[in-house]
Amino acid sequence: MNEQYDHKNERIDYLFHTHLKIIQSSDLFPFSLDSVLLARFVYVPIQRGKLVDLCSGNGVIPFLLSERTKGQITGIEIQPEVCALAERGAVLNHLEDRVDFLCADAKQITGKIGRGTCDIVTCNPPYFTMSAARDIKLNRHLAIARHELMITLADVLEIGSSLLKPGGKFAMVHRPERLVDIVEGMRAEGIETKRLQYVHPHRNKPANIVLVEGTKGGKPGVSVLPPIVVYHSDGRYTEDVWPKP
Amino acid sequence: MNEQYDHKNERIDYLFHTHLKIIQSSDLFPFSLDSVLLARFVYVPIQRGKLVDLCSGNGVIPFLLSERTKGQITGIEIQPEVCALAERGAVLNHLEDRVDFLCADAKQITGKIGRGTCDIVTCNPPYFTMSAARDIKLNRHLAIARHELMITLADVLEIGSSLLKPGGKFAMVHRPERLVDIVEGMRAEGIETKRLQYVHPHRNKPANIVLVEGTKGGKPGVSVLPPIVVYHSDGRYTEDVWPKP
Repeated sequence: MNEQYDHKNERIDYLFHTHLKIIQSSDLFPFSLDSVLLARFVYVPIQRGKLVDLCSGNGVIPFLLSERTKGQITGIEIQPEVCALAERGAVLNHLEDRVDFLCADAKQITGKIGRGTCDIVTCNPPYFTMSAARDIKLNRHLAIARHELMITLADVLEIGSSLLKPGGKFAMVHRPERLVDIVEGMRAEGIETKRLQYVHPHRNKPANIVLVEGTKGGKPGVSVLPPIVVYHSDGRYTEDVWPKP
Repeated sequence: MNEQYDHKNERIDYLFHTHLKIIQSSDLFPFSLDSVLLARFVYVPIQRGKLVDLCSGNGVIPFLLSERTKGQITGIEIQPEVCALAERGAVLNHLEDRVDFLCADAKQITGKIGRGTCDIVTCNPPYFTMSAARDIKLNRHLAIARHELMITLADVLEIGSSLLKPGGKFAMVHRPERLVDIVEGMRAEGIETKRLQYVHPHRNKPANIVLVEGTKGGKPGVSVLPPIVVYHSDGRYTEDVWPKP
């Protein structure tokens, strides 16, 4: 447990393939490839729009989305120390006018943001159920980010649906193990799965990440995009992850 | 419409990578790569077991499964001309003692086969809903094989569930567009999706086939296998489809 948050363990990194900076702290948790892939995967309106990122962490998804849209982006993060990092990141990247963060429980934000007002809702949620809570004792910040301690998959889908306009898009990154829960849960919330993309660490290994996008009130019909393979057999990143400039 | 079935349009082909023969007719419909991939994908018990293949066509799945198991395999086919081809194929391949065919409506076979008696149920069902029935006028045999004229996805899942023992496996090949209907429908029938594998015609194209396997009464948790890519960019089959001997 690290009850006392210490700024001296922070560092500033560049986000791949961008000039964006991200503040990370070894006391909290780093952003992951999952978030980078989600920010590339999701459909975004280019000129305007209202975008919300749930479980925003240090803000990596809002920052990356700001490169693809001129819309307004709000990140929601429940942990004050983590949300403060994201807010400082917005200043560092000169994005204060287009990207803001709300330190709040996502389960209580629909009133603040406005029901049925959003074009896009993204989320890189905690992947693991409470029963898999092995690492809770190690680092509470990390545990909240990884386990369904503060928010569950069902909560995320319900919140996403309540925020979206008809025709708005919900996009999430998760573990393929949960696929049936995800697509069934989305349909139950009125969000129809339209696009899936699987991420395989190597060409001949099972997928360990799935990217999912659905449309509020959409018609059934899924498109499964070409797979993303992360590493070549020699350990280098493939062009799926690190495209040639 | 070809009301009069004419044997002179038949031919005998070898099934890839096997010494198995298959009788095909240009008046009916050929077996497809989909069936070959399903027969390779599905788990089968090696030494014994009761296996049923629904919508069996000319018997390609039962014949291929006979190379992987010593169990008893029954193919169900509603079209008499097509079922007759499959029966003759069993004789041609000297498989009469282990592979039989039943010319029947799959919706009425649970009593004959026995509820809860099967280890494995496979199916390459009609993929298209009635609304997409463009080619019905061309060839009735083909239309029945491709469109949900005689049997729907919901029927197939209900029959599969009724035939399977607890712990038995249901495996199907279908279009990825129907994925949510498939996995939600399986769960509704008490079959939990455990393995998925997508087939992409080319490395950079969306999937056009999905292989699905579920367990009757299984726990939630999906594994997404490495993708199958059918063609190299130069048009040759890849080793995913045509493995080196």
